[in-house]
Amino acid sequence: MSENARRGAAFHKLSEKSVVDHFGFDENLTFQQRYLIADQHWKGDNGPILFYTGNEGDITWFCNNTGFMWDVAEELNAMLVFAEHRYYGESLPFGNESFSDSKHLNYLTSEQALADFAVLIEYLKTNIAGARYSPVIAIGGSYGGMLAAWFRMKYPHVVVGALAASAPIWQFGDLVPCGTYFSIVTNDFRKSGTGCADSIRNSWNAIDNLSLTDAGLQWLSNTFLLCSPLKSPQDAVLLKNWLSETWVNLAMVNYPYKADFLQPLPAWPIQEVCKFLKDPSLPDKLLLQNVFQAVNLYYNYSGVVSCLDMSETATKNLGQLGWYYQACTEMVMPMCTDGVNDMFEPQKWDFDALSEECYRLWGVRPRPSWILSMYGGKNISSHSNIIFSNGGLDPWSAGGVTQNISDSLVAIVIPDGAHHLDLRSRNPLDPKSVQQARATEICYMKQWIKEARHSH
Amino acid sequence: MSENARRGAAFHKLSEKSVVDHFGFDENLTFQQRYLIADQHWKGDNGPILFYTGNEGDITWFCNNTGFMWDVAEELNAMLVFAEHRYYGESLPFGNESFSDSKHLNYLTSEQALADFAVLIEYLKTNIAGARYSPVIAIGGSYGGMLAAWFRMKYPHVVVGALAASAPIWQFGDLVPCGTYFSIVTNDFRKSGTGCADSIRNSWNAIDNLSLTDAGLQWLSNTFLLCSPLKSPQDAVLLKNWLSETWVNLAMVNYPYKADFLQPLPAWPIQEVCKFLKDPSLPDKLLLQNVFQAVNLYYNYSGVVSCLDMSETATKNLGQLGWYYQACTEMVMPMCTDGVNDMFEPQKWDFDALSEECYRLWGVRPRPSWILSMYGGKNISSHSNIIFSNGGLDPWSAGGVTQNISDSLVAIVIPDGAHHLDLRSRNPLDPKSVQQARATEICYMKQWIKEARHSH
Repeated sequence: MSENARRGAAFHKLSEKSVVDHFGFDENLTFQQRYLIADQHWKGDNGPILFYTGNEGDITWFCNNTGFMWDVAEELNAMLVFAEHRYYGESLPFGNESFSDSKHLNYLTSEQALADFAVLIEYLKTNIAGARYSPVIAIGGSYGGMLAAWFRMKYPHVVVGALAASAPIWQFGDLVPCGTYFSIVTNDFRKSGTGCADSIRNSWNAIDNLSLTDAGLQWLSNTFLLCSPLKSPQDAVLLKNWLSETWVNLAMVNYPYKADFLQPLPAWPIQEVCKFLKDPSLPDKLLLQNVFQAVNLYYNYSGVVSCLDMSETATKNLGQLGWYYQACTEMVMPMCTDGVNDMFEPQKWDFDALSEECYRLWGVRPRPSWILSMYGGKNISSHSNIIFSNGGLDPWSAGGVTQNISDSLVAIVIPDGAHHLDLRSRNPLDPKSVQQARATEICYMKQWIKEARHSH
Repeated sequence: MSENARRGAAFHKLSEKSVVDHFGFDENLTFQQRYLIADQHWKGDNGPILFYTGNEGDITWFCNNTGFMWDVAEELNAMLVFAEHRYYGESLPFGNESFSDSKHLNYLTSEQALADFAVLIEYLKTNIAGARYSPVIAIGGSYGGMLAAWFRMKYPHVVVGALAASAPIWQFGDLVPCGTYFSIVTNDFRKSGTGCADSIRNSWNAIDNLSLTDAGLQWLSNTFLLCSPLKSPQDAVLLKNWLSETWVNLAMVNYPYKADFLQPLPAWPIQEVCKFLKDPSLPDKLLLQNVFQAVNLYYNYSGVVSCLDMSETATKNLGQLGWYYQACTEMVMPMCTDGVNDMFEPQKWDFDALSEECYRLWGVRPRPSWILSMYGGKNISSHSNIIFSNGGLDPWSAGGVTQNISDSLVAIVIPDGAHHLDLRSRNPLDPKSVQQARATEICYMKQWIKEARHSH
C-alpha cells in the first residue's frame, strides 16, 4: 500500500565496506549498509541529491512514506538517496548477533550513524558519474529529522542544508517542560469531539475498578479482544500503558486523509475515534466498551484482526528493540503527565527508574546530558541552513524548534499537521498550511543549491 | 626554566569522572583528566575563559610555553584553563596499562579528546561561581591548534572562537603537496647561511661512504659522540633519520631569542648552526665534522651532555608513543622529499609501508581519509570565528590555512615566525610581524567576546 507505488522503483544497494567503529581502530570490522537510490529525475551534471537520513526502522518503509522527496525530485531534477540507519532493517553490523549483548550493541549511536552517512555520501559522489560536486540536502522526519539537523551541524561540508521534519531535538534535559508532549495529545482529543479527552481521563479509574476482581479482569480481556488475557490486577498497568500509547500514536498520525503509516486509518482518525467517546460520565463498563470501539478503530480499521495484541502498537517496520537501546543510552527524553493539563494518569519523570531498567535489560546506563554536550541543546545559533518543521497536532512538536533562530535556521509550524505531514506526498486533502510549508521548504532548498553552485 | 615562572601558579586539578568512551556505552569506565587553572586575572562575573586544547604532551610543559595566554589573561581579565589530552602526561585512561595494546589504546582519538574538552568546559561553567555564561575561547598550537580549530567547528556551542596556531589541518590526503614541508625546512637553512643547505644535502652521501667500512662506522660513532655506536651499514639509516629530524626540529624552533622549547637553544639557532656549514664541497670527514658541530649545538647547547642519543630528538615532555599511535590511525600526514626542492634524500610518500608498520606495531590500520570526512578538508567555509596563524619559517605552515577563507575564518602569516611563535610570551626581541599577529588575534578575541555578550 505504498503511497509511492506509482513513482517507479528505488534501487536497493548495499555499501561494500561500512566501518563498524568510526571512532576507534582496535576492531577493524566492516558491515553492509543498505541504501536506496532513485535517479529517474536526476540529469547528472552535478544536479542536487536529496539524502534521507534514515531513522529507527526499515528504510524501504521510510522511502514509501516520504513522498515529498519524490515530489521535490521531480521539481528540482534531484537524485534521491535513502540511507538505512545501522542496526535497523537489513543494515545489521553483526547480522543476527547485533542485538545479542551490549558489546554488539556498542556501535548503535547517533554519532556512528552520522559518520556512516558522511562516508556514504563521499562514496557516492566519488563513484557516480556527474555527482562529484552535487549539492546534497539532508532530509528526515522524527528521529531521522534530528539526524538531518545534527548532520548539517556536524558535517556542513557534506550537506548544504537540512530539512528536519518533526524533529524533537530539544526533548532532552530540561530544555522543554516534560509534560507538554502529553498535553498536546490531550488537546488533539479535546478539540476532536466533546467529552472525548474526559472520557479517556475517566477510563483509567474504570479499568482500575474492574481489575480488582477476576471477573472484572475477564470482562476487560473479553471486551478489549485481548490476545493474551489479563491475569492479575497488576496487568491493568499493561492495559493502561497500551491504551496510552495508542492515544499518543493516534495524535502522531492524525492525518487529513486516509493513510497507512503506523496503522491503516481513515482521514482525521481522532475525530472518528472521538465519535465513540462523547459521554465521559457513563458507568465503568459502558465507558470502557466505548474506549474499546475507539482503539478497535485504530487496530482493526481493516476489519481483519481477530484479537488485539498489547505488545504491538504500531507498524513492525519500526525497530522497537534498537530504539529502546538508544533510549537507554543517548536518547533520554524526559516525559511526564499530571492528569490535569493532560488526560493521562499522573506520572513524574523518573530518571533513576529508567537507569535501573536499562541496566537490567542491557547492562548499560543512560547518559542524559551527553546529547546536550554533543549537539548543543538550545545554543545552536552559529549553525546555518536548517529548516525545522513542526506539526501543531503532533506531540513531538513539544520538543521541536518552533521559532526562527536566525535567517537560516528557520522554524515552520503547520497548525493542522500531525507527525511530519509535510514529508508525505501531495494530497488533494492537504490543508493549506502544509502546502505552504512545503512551498517554503522547496524555496529554501533552491536557495541552498544556488548558494552551493556560487561558492563552488 | 619556564618562561612563565614569574606569572605565579597554575593550579593542577583532576577531573573526577571523565568518560573513557564518549561514543559507546558498553564500557562505562571513567578516568581522571588533568587540567590547570590560573585565575589571577579573572574577575568572575562571566568574564572570558581562554581554554588551551592540550596536545600530545605533558600539559604543564604546554602551559609553560604558551605565555601569550598569560599576556592575554592580563589584558582581558580572563581565566586560563589548560586541559591535558587523554593518554598524555598524567591523563592516562588505564594508568600504566594505557599503551599496553590496541584495546587499551582504542580511545586515543581526536574525537574523544574534543568530547573531553566539551564535557570539561560544561563542568567548569557549572561548578565555578560566576562562570556560567563565560565566553570560552579555544587556543592551541600545532596538533593542539588543529584541536582548537576542530573544537570550534564541532562544538561551536561550547567555544565562541578558536586561535589555531601553526595548525596543519590540511596536511592530510592530497590537500597539499607532500613535499612542501621539507622544502620549507630547506629554505630556512638556505637563507641562514651560504652553503648551509648544500652542506646538509652533501652529508647524506658522505655518511653512506663512511658507513661502508667498520672503521668508517667507528669514526662516525666517535665523531657524532653517539651513545650507541653504529654497528652495520644499515645503521647509517638511523643516523641519517636522526639528523633529518634534527634539521626539522631546528626549523620549528628557529626563534628570534634564546629559548628552551624542544631543546635549550640560542637566538636564531639555524644561523648559529649554519656557521659550521659554510663549505659544502669539503671532503666527507671534514664535512661531517662540521655537521657534528651543528647538531651538537642543538643537543648540547648547555654543554653538559656527554653523548648524543639518537632515540631522542626533542623534549621528553612530548608523548612520542601516543603520537605514533595517532599517526598510525587518524593522523595520517603524507610527507615526501625529492632532494631537489629540498636538502634531504629523496623519499616518496609510501602509505602501504606505513600501514604495514602500524599493523606490525599496534595491530591497527590507518584510515587516511577519515580526518577529511570528519573535519571537512578544505571545505570548511560554513564555520566561523577561527584564526589560523602560521609561521613563515615553520615547516608546518605547509599544511596550514594561510589565506582568509571568510570574514571570520582568518589566516595570519608571520613571515619571521617559526612554530607557533605567537603563542609564546612577549619578548623584546620579537619581530614586528609577530607583534602584529598577536594584536590581530587579541582584536578578534575581543570581538568574539563582545558578540557572545550581545547574543546572550
